[in-house]
Amino acid sequence: MKSDLDNQLENHGLDALLVVGPAQHNPAMTYLTGNVHVTDALLVKLRGKPPVLFFNPMERDEAAQSGLPTRNLADFPLSRYVRAAEGDQARGRALRLKDVLAAAGFTKGKLGVTGRVEFAPWYSTFQALQEVAPEITVAGQEAQNALLAARRTKSEDEIAHIRRMGQITTSVVGRVADFLSGRRGKDGLLVKADGEPVTIGEVKSLINRWLAELGAENPEGTIFAQGRDAGVPHSTGNPQEPLRLGTTIVFDIFPCESGGGYFYDFTRTWCLGYAPDDALRLYEEVRAVHDQIIAELKPNALCRHYQRRTCELFAQNGHPTSCESHGLQEGYVHSLGHGLGLDVHEPPWFGANSSPENRLEPGVVFTVEPGLYYPERGMGCRLEDTLWARPDGSFEILADYPLDLVLPVRK
Amino acid sequence: MKSDLDNQLENHGLDALLVVGPAQHNPAMTYLTGNVHVTDALLVKLRGKPPVLFFNPMERDEAAQSGLPTRNLADFPLSRYVRAAEGDQARGRALRLKDVLAAAGFTKGKLGVTGRVEFAPWYSTFQALQEVAPEITVAGQEAQNALLAARRTKSEDEIAHIRRMGQITTSVVGRVADFLSGRRGKDGLLVKADGEPVTIGEVKSLINRWLAELGAENPEGTIFAQGRDAGVPHSTGNPQEPLRLGTTIVFDIFPCESGGGYFYDFTRTWCLGYAPDDALRLYEEVRAVHDQIIAELKPNALCRHYQRRTCELFAQNGHPTSCESHGLQEGYVHSLGHGLGLDVHEPPWFGANSSPENRLEPGVVFTVEPGLYYPERGMGCRLEDTLWARPDGSFEILADYPLDLVLPVRK
Repeated sequence: MKSDLDNQLENHGLDALLVVGPAQHNPAMTYLTGNVHVTDALLVKLRGKPPVLFFNPMERDEAAQSGLPTRNLADFPLSRYVRAAEGDQARGRALRLKDVLAAAGFTKGKLGVTGRVEFAPWYSTFQALQEVAPEITVAGQEAQNALLAARRTKSEDEIAHIRRMGQITTSVVGRVADFLSGRRGKDGLLVKADGEPVTIGEVKSLINRWLAELGAENPEGTIFAQGRDAGVPHSTGNPQEPLRLGTTIVFDIFPCESGGGYFYDFTRTWCLGYAPDDALRLYEEVRAVHDQIIAELKPNALCRHYQRRTCELFAQNGHPTSCESHGLQEGYVHSLGHGLGLDVHEPPWFGANSSPENRLEPGVVFTVEPGLYYPERGMGCRLEDTLWARPDGSFEILADYPLDLVLPVRK
Repeated sequence: MKSDLDNQLENHGLDALLVVGPAQHNPAMTYLTGNVHVTDALLVKLRGKPPVLFFNPMERDEAAQSGLPTRNLADFPLSRYVRAAEGDQARGRALRLKDVLAAAGFTKGKLGVTGRVEFAPWYSTFQALQEVAPEITVAGQEAQNALLAARRTKSEDEIAHIRRMGQITTSVVGRVADFLSGRRGKDGLLVKADGEPVTIGEVKSLINRWLAELGAENPEGTIFAQGRDAGVPHSTGNPQEPLRLGTTIVFDIFPCESGGGYFYDFTRTWCLGYAPDDALRLYEEVRAVHDQIIAELKPNALCRHYQRRTCELFAQNGHPTSCESHGLQEGYVHSLGHGLGLDVHEPPWFGANSSPENRLEPGVVFTVEPGLYYPERGMGCRLEDTLWARPDGSFEILADYPLDLVLPVRK
C-alpha cells in the first residue's frame, strides 16, 4: 500500500524517488498524483516526506488537482540550462534536474528513477546526471521494485476503483452476450437481420463503444478469438472473420479507467448456439480447475503453489503443462494468473518458480485464469476472474458473471 | 520518412537500433512494426538491413502480422539467463539481450536504444549490458534524434492514416456541435429537454463514445474548457461544470487510431447562443492570425519564423507574447504549433528559437494553433488546424471544418 512506500524505499536502499513523465497511462506517476491530466511533470519524493510535483506552467490547475505540494517548472527554464550545457540537450536536462532535485531538498545519495516514458532521451539525461552530479547515484531496478512492492497490496480506495472497473467490464460483457444471443444462426454462421454475418471486428467495435460510454478505455485492445485462434492465448482474433456457431471463442477483456487508471481483467469462453463434445470436454476441464483453485485459495499462501497445483490438475488429465516444458504451444501453456492494479499485469506473479514474496497476502488483487489450448484441433478455452484477498482472510471475485460455455442464439 | 532511417542512423553515428516494449502506444515500435497487437517485444535493426522482430511465443501470430522477419524469444529463456546472473534480474536481462543482439548479427559498435517503456528496469538492464558487453556502446538521445528525424516527414501511406483520423475527429466535432445546438438556453445555461443543465463531463463522455464508435482512441483526453479555464491553455475543463451561454469554450481534441497509431489535433473556440463583444474581438484577432499565418506558409521556410511572425502580429495589437517573456500566463503564451504523427507532439518544433532543421520541408505534418488567453477576464481562444506540406509545395488542411465562433442553440 502507498503507506508502505517509505519502508520500501528504505528496504531498497533509496534516499529518494523521482518519477518522470505524464500522470496518465504512467502507473508510477498516477499512483502518487491520482488520475489528473498532467502531460509532463517531475515528481520528487524524499524518503519520509510527501511528494512534490513540479509542473509545467500551462498545467498548473491540473497539477493542483493532485492535492500535492507543487512547484512551477517555469522557475527552471530548460533553455537556460541547455545554453549552459552549450547546446547539449541531455546535459542541459541533467543540469536542470540537479536544480529541481536540490529545490526538493535532495543533493546527494541514492535516487530511484522511474516512469513510463520514451526511454532514449531519459537514458541520456540520467547518464549526464551522473556526470554533473556525481554525488547522486541513479538506480532503476530498485525504484521499480520498491514501487511494485508497495503497489502489490491495495487500499480500500483502490479496491473501489478496481471493483467499479469490474462492474463496467461485466456490464459490457453482458451487452455483448445480449447482442450475440439476439442474432440468429444460418449455415453455421451468426447473422444479422439482413442475413449478413456478424464479424469479430463488429463485435470489437461495439465493445470499444460500450466501454467508452461507461467511462472506460481499452488501450491494450480486446481478445475475441475463435477456433484455431482461441488456441493461441494472445491471438486477438481476426476482425474480418465471421462468427461461427459451435466453435470456442475466447473473450478476454482488460480495460482501464478513462485517462489511464485501474484495470480489470476478465475472460469467458463461449460457443454460439451449441458446443461440440470435444469443446465441452475442454471447457469442463478448465472449469473444474478454475473452481478447484478458487476453492483452495488460502491467505498468505505462495502464488507458485497454485501454478504447480494447476499443472498437477491438468497433467492428471494428460495435458502437457508449462511446469514441465518451456515454450509449449499446446496444453496448459501459461501461468495461472497475475496481480492487477494500475498495470494489467503486475505483482504478485504466479510462475511455478516465482519467489516467496509473491503470495496471497491480504490486500493483493490477482487473476485466476486456467486455460487449455489446442490450435491444431481448432480450439482453446480460458476462464478468468479477478479476485481480492480481503483483510478478513476470505477471497472475493470483484465482479460476478456466469461461467456458461454455450451462448444460445435465435433459431 | 522510413526510407531515410538508415541515413539517419549513420548521421547519428549508430550501427544499430534496438526498440523495446509493446507495439501499441509505443511510437518507435509502431513505426517499424505497424499497429499490431504485440505487448512486449525486441526489435533489432542493423544499419542497412531490415528490422528483425523478436517475439514472445504466445504472440507469434500477432508478430507475424508485422510482415517483418521474426525470431521466437522462447529460444532465449529469461529464467536461464537470470540463473546465470545468480538471480540478478537486470544482469540476466542484459545477458539475454547480448545473445539476442548477436543472433541479429550485432556484437559490437554503437547501439541506439529506444521505446516507450517503464524506465526503471530498462535503465538497469542497459547499465548491466555495458558491463557484460563492453564492446557495445549504448546511446539514447542519438537513437531518439535519428528516429524523430526520419519520422519528421511522412509517406503517402502515413498521410492516409492521419487524414482518416482528421475525418473521424471533425465528424465527432460535428456531432458535438449538433448535440449542443439541439439543446436550448435557459437562465444563461444550456439545458436538456428535462430542464437539467448539460455538463462538460456529459459532453466529454459523448466524445469518447463517438470516437470509439468511429474506431479511434482518446488516450490523452479532451480539452473542453470554458470561461476562466479556456484562458489556461492546458486546463481540460471541469466535468461537473454546466455549460454557460455566451462564454468562450476551447474545444481541443487529439485522438489517435485505435490500438495506438496516428493522431490528429484540432481546436475550435465556441460561444453558445451568442458572443459578447470582448469574446468576439478576441476571436477575431486569433482568427486573423490563423488565416494570415496559413496564407504565409512557404515550403522549406523555418518554423521559428512563423512563431516570431505570430508574436509580431499579436504584439501589434498589444498582447504580451511568449517571444518576449518566459512563463507568461496571459496573452499569447505558447508556440504556434508542432509536428504530429505517431506522437501528438513531435518534430518539427515551432519555438521562436527552434533550430533550422525545424522547417516546412515537403512531407511534414504540423499544426497551426494561435491562441490568446486571459484567465482573469474569464476567456481564452485558440483555433487549430493540422496541415500537410505537400510534395508539390502547397499546404493542405487535412480535415476541413468551419471556424465559426457562435454556435446557435434552441430558443
